Amino acid sequence: MRRDDRCVLALERALGASKVDDSDERRAQLSRDESETDCVLPRAVVIARESADVREALRVCEEHGVAVVPRGAGTGRTGGAAVVVDSIVLDTTALCDVKDIDRDDNIVIVEPGVVTGALHAAVEREGLFFPPDPQSAAWCTIGGNVAENAGGPRAHRYGVTRDYVLGMRAVTMSGAELTLGRRTPKGVTGYDLTSLMVGSEGTLAVFTELWLRVIPKPATVRTLLATFASITDAGRAVTAIVRKGIFARCIELLDSYCCDAIRDAAPSALPPNASVALLIEIDGDPEDCDARCERAGETLTNHGAIDVFAAQHEGERERLWSARSVLSRALRARARFKLSEDIVVPRSKLAAMLDDVRAIAEREQIAMPTYGHAGDGNLHVNLLWSDPSLRPAVDRAVRALFERTIAHGGTLSGEHGIGVLKRDWMHLEQSPAVLDAQRAIKRALDPRGLLNPHKVLPAPGHRGC
Amino acid sequence: MRRDDRCVLALERALGASKVDDSDERRAQLSRDESETDCVLPRAVVIARESADVREALRVCEEHGVAVVPRGAGTGRTGGAAVVVDSIVLDTTALCDVKDIDRDDNIVIVEPGVVTGALHAAVEREGLFFPPDPQSAAWCTIGGNVAENAGGPRAHRYGVTRDYVLGMRAVTMSGAELTLGRRTPKGVTGYDLTSLMVGSEGTLAVFTELWLRVIPKPATVRTLLATFASITDAGRAVTAIVRKGIFARCIELLDSYCCDAIRDAAPSALPPNASVALLIEIDGDPEDCDARCERAGETLTNHGAIDVFAAQHEGERERLWSARSVLSRALRARARFKLSEDIVVPRSKLAAMLDDVRAIAEREQIAMPTYGHAGDGNLHVNLLWSDPSLRPAVDRAVRALFERTIAHGGTLSGEHGIGVLKRDWMHLEQSPAVLDAQRAIKRALDPRGLLNPHKVLPAPGHRGC
Repeated sequence: MRRDDRCVLALERALGASKVDDSDERRAQLSRDESETDCVLPRAVVIARESADVREALRVCEEHGVAVVPRGAGTGRTGGAAVVVDSIVLDTTALCDVKDIDRDDNIVIVEPGVVTGALHAAVEREGLFFPPDPQSAAWCTIGGNVAENAGGPRAHRYGVTRDYVLGMRAVTMSGAELTLGRRTPKGVTGYDLTSLMVGSEGTLAVFTELWLRVIPKPATVRTLLATFASITDAGRAVTAIVRKGIFARCIELLDSYCCDAIRDAAPSALPPNASVALLIEIDGDPEDCDARCERAGETLTNHGAIDVFAAQHEGERERLWSARSVLSRALRARARFKLSEDIVVPRSKLAAMLDDVRAIAEREQIAMPTYGHAGDGNLHVNLLWSDPSLRPAVDRAVRALFERTIAHGGTLSGEHGIGVLKRDWMHLEQSPAVLDAQRAIKRALDPRGLLNPHKVLPAPGHRGC
Repeated sequence: MRRDDRCVLALERALGASKVDDSDERRAQLSRDESETDCVLPRAVVIARESADVREALRVCEEHGVAVVPRGAGTGRTGGAAVVVDSIVLDTTALCDVKDIDRDDNIVIVEPGVVTGALHAAVEREGLFFPPDPQSAAWCTIGGNVAENAGGPRAHRYGVTRDYVLGMRAVTMSGAELTLGRRTPKGVTGYDLTSLMVGSEGTLAVFTELWLRVIPKPATVRTLLATFASITDAGRAVTAIVRKGIFARCIELLDSYCCDAIRDAAPSALPPNASVALLIEIDGDPEDCDARCERAGETLTNHGAIDVFAAQHEGERERLWSARSVLSRALRARARFKLSEDIVVPRSKLAAMLDDVRAIAEREQIAMPTYGHAGDGNLHVNLLWSDPSLRPAVDRAVRALFERTIAHGGTLSGEHGIGVLKRDWMHLEQSPAVLDAQRAIKRALDPRGLLNPHKVLPAPGHRGC
């Protein structure tokens, strides 16, 4: 630290030196998330240990006109927690208390730094269930999940994080301490600021407490793996499953490139004949679950499945899911550079969108393995390349991908958010009037624009990439 | 009309005289909703016949600095559509086209004036289901439902209107035409302005098109009526049903005053021994539905039900529901004045809140029959009186009711909204900082405060009733 940094000195005075870390190591470590965003070093990191620390940190930074980047575990994929301008980083991971699990009202009160996987475990011990399950659940925080409105495979049946946030405590950059929402199943008292906060990517307020809805834990889960000769067949099978009202909790797609990569990384994870695969989970009461599994199996077979494999015990279930969990790493091993997109199209456009992805990959000669939450039309399209000179082709492929997505009535992001990386593509989906309305709301809650600046909203007048 | 009213003349010029009605009759008719709000006559009524009419009407009124009160069928209970200051009324009921029912993507595109019951019928003909079912479904409009975030009995399983609004087209008072949200199951592109609009009671924008999510229609519905000797027993049975994860779609409570009133109005609607009753519906696949019904029946019997009656055919089902549908009218017949409140408490506080209601009714000597969506802790507490001199006692009872609700961790409104009637109680539930944040958002989207003014938010500095 430059010892003349008034903001950092004031933070030390207000919070105590133990909560302000300006070591090069910590600054570098917390300057970035899991995206490829270009970052700068923050002035220092504030480690909030109680919720009052959040308020104090924001107050001091506001007074000094210094930007603040709040962060959880930094697992974001679009740069939401990346430091892109001169800032203080506000680390919320030490705010990690599960304050209450209310078995009578099915509500959980947590601090934002609780790791999502720990939350899952804590509520499941009580016979309850918190459905959102982002891939990074073992290390991401619930605060980050709320900020990004995270999803995951189980969103197909259970919805995304927003559907489980009843209320919260949060602090705005101008120091307002807001208690938002409610602890009741219903409530229409005033504007829904809770929903506005969910998915606002740390640009409107910093959460200090979250009130989450949980549901009874399903008694049984059954897992099916169906293999197909072509992705078109798999796409049609997805539509059929949804149409039949089978209410699977997950319908995950793996294309042939992904299946190959998985087999390389974990030879026994997939049957040898799996060219394209669907991983399907059905949960509920045992009898009901079995009946729906049977209907799902028939439907898959009638729609071109070569084979339908049902896990017979927990070990088999874990083996099937291991295919999915090794995937991201397996793809990364195949090339020097990897970009992971996160588009959504209406379910009926899934097959057409998958065709478009193949056409773009062929035209630009970039590998574009695709997997994701097919039941929701939410595809993780990956771009893999090793030769840096291919970057212009990658950029063209991304543009074409987004343009086709929008042409199909889709959206740029299903669960990763906008952050920095997709900000300058917002104009493809949203009109200047819609962007202006969001800027007006941002100004209403953060007039000086100091909270997580340059995220989500493109600069006014920016006409896109 | 005063023929020198420039705003009305400008509206006639912009929209054509046939869309502007300044007859005394129409002005009086559309000055109020179904609440007891004190109203004034609007200058004129604009009848929007296409979405461009909404834009034009707002533009002209903004130019003339005249307030606008948008309305659907006017079935609101809190004055959201009541005219309380010099205004133009913007009637959206003629915007009533069901534009698309998309069977592949389970999305329905409608104009705001579509009657909710007509929407139910239209989607059910296609094997689809739009769960929100406010009591006034036969005549309220979907636009009003979205503006108020309406609920209804089925909210217990399926959630409220907000959970089914994916996106919309809307026009702000400053003329911005906003296309918000998405047509896909997931999406996290920018701030969730769609959720902000839902429940904003016509104060932020006027809807011209709504994109609604629908689900496959459940194959079977079973209806149970359980009778109890005391409301405490019934309250405990509700908790037990929810805890068992039976996932009833409705759990409706009728207290003893309500049961008496129903028997007076429709002698055969309830069994003679029903002192307190729960009306429960379970839906799903036939076998699953039957299994859950059986578990529900056992649970009710084990928790003090005197009798559990299962409807054996559609006629019996309708008879059971007729008890619920005659209720509001039956209560009104019992007294000259009726005020209907709409509180929510955490489910675990239901029994305590019901005790509080009885204590308040006794103390103030006002009849306070209570019914409602017990599964959600959402109670419609009615106040009945005939002697106008009892008004101060009624006011004390309402204050005590709200204070106990908040003390139990509840909320002022579960589905009726705030409108005018509850606006000055907002401070009981929300801090000055939260109210200020909402005012800032209101100003961001409606800087001159012309769209449905004096609704939802109390005047700054107002310290409550």
